[in-house]
Amino acid sequence: MKLFYTPEIENEKTFTLSENESKHAIRVLRLKKNDTITLINGKGSFYEAIISDDNPKKCEVIITNLQKENLTIPVLHIAIAPTKNNDRTEWFIEKCTEIGITEITPTLCSHSERKRIKQDRFEKTAISAMKQSLKATLPKVNDLINFKDLVNSPFNGKKYIAHCYKDEQKHFKDIYHKGENAIILIGPEGDFSEEEVNLAKNNGYEPITFGESRLRTETAGIVACTTFNLINE
Amino acid sequence: MKLFYTPEIENEKTFTLSENESKHAIRVLRLKKNDTITLINGKGSFYEAIISDDNPKKCEVIITNLQKENLTIPVLHIAIAPTKNNDRTEWFIEKCTEIGITEITPTLCSHSERKRIKQDRFEKTAISAMKQSLKATLPKVNDLINFKDLVNSPFNGKKYIAHCYKDEQKHFKDIYHKGENAIILIGPEGDFSEEEVNLAKNNGYEPITFGESRLRTETAGIVACTTFNLINE
Repeated sequence: MKLFYTPEIENEKTFTLSENESKHAIRVLRLKKNDTITLINGKGSFYEAIISDDNPKKCEVIITNLQKENLTIPVLHIAIAPTKNNDRTEWFIEKCTEIGITEITPTLCSHSERKRIKQDRFEKTAISAMKQSLKATLPKVNDLINFKDLVNSPFNGKKYIAHCYKDEQKHFKDIYHKGENAIILIGPEGDFSEEEVNLAKNNGYEPITFGESRLRTETAGIVACTTFNLINE
Repeated sequence: MKLFYTPEIENEKTFTLSENESKHAIRVLRLKKNDTITLINGKGSFYEAIISDDNPKKCEVIITNLQKENLTIPVLHIAIAPTKNNDRTEWFIEKCTEIGITEITPTLCSHSERKRIKQDRFEKTAISAMKQSLKATLPKVNDLINFKDLVNSPFNGKKYIAHCYKDEQKHFKDIYHKGENAIILIGPEGDFSEEEVNLAKNNGYEPITFGESRLRTETAGIVACTTFNLINE
């Protein structure tokens, strides 16, 4: 299945691929008139299409079928401190997009070593992971936000903070229930500050762990995402 | 906690670090006489020690305490096709070492694009992940083995093969029970061949999935490892 990401598609009967996607289809993949491709809009729709004009700059297609992705999983939002090494955050984004996630928010914490991110690069990682795993829904990848602003934002679901201080943390799998929307905060290499943990708790976040092992930031994020999907499957 | 990997340590009361570890302790970390460090043997023991001679070539320590790692998790052996891009397999090894795994066997399959590996590099990845996650047990990282030889080897526990053909796969979480040793086979980018799947089934391997999502090789490996640990926690 050859997937092309076309976020602007709606209910057209014909569609023209962007210059980039046209080039990829005709020059790179060497597709020709009458070949079949699939467009995805990032919002859960697959559009089956036939190439009607194999122009390498503006490839035209006729839409032949529309299918909706079967998405019954509740909302999972992970707010995570970007790692010092950018690759580790990109790897987290790639893996969570494959496994299943709704929204990712890079979050600036007191102990964050990295204070800037490239949101567009993170989004490209998510787009390519979506195509790779044959999904039609793109996770929302937000720009960097301050921890304080994040925990003060409203969220329609259960709220959790994963930290390593001595506290009354419960294992996520023991307090989260199937079907509930969830936001999970994952801290930086040096953990959240105690002030941040308290601020989150005062805003309704429950402290959690993901077991005995001491996990890196990006590993904790992936374990959170896997556990959430496992419970909801 | 400053961890040093000393696989050769046994029941000595004093110990001399290797030249490399001595240099790391004294030159890089600038540790001095009477500073406390921890040695790990990779077999589940932590040795608390005090530096008695801060010689940067042969640092001597006195062992003051021995602690065994609390390991109640059954054996998890993952046999996985090495990915075309080596980094992806190294990520898998790093993450599984953090999360918890007993043995990893890179496995050459019919559809494998990569036919050679650097076992010593994979082992270094596991050592550094063990230290990073403050564990004292090093997963066994085997050299590359042929699929056929692997499935013909005896294994004392449950045997599973994760593949994507239409089959009677059950979700791993629904057939695996807490406390059982398990070996799980994870295929290459192009999946196992049908012959390989049949050969495994004839050797007692049960077909499994890890859910609806189409996962990359290394992602499937990490999801397998997370699921196994989650059930055993």
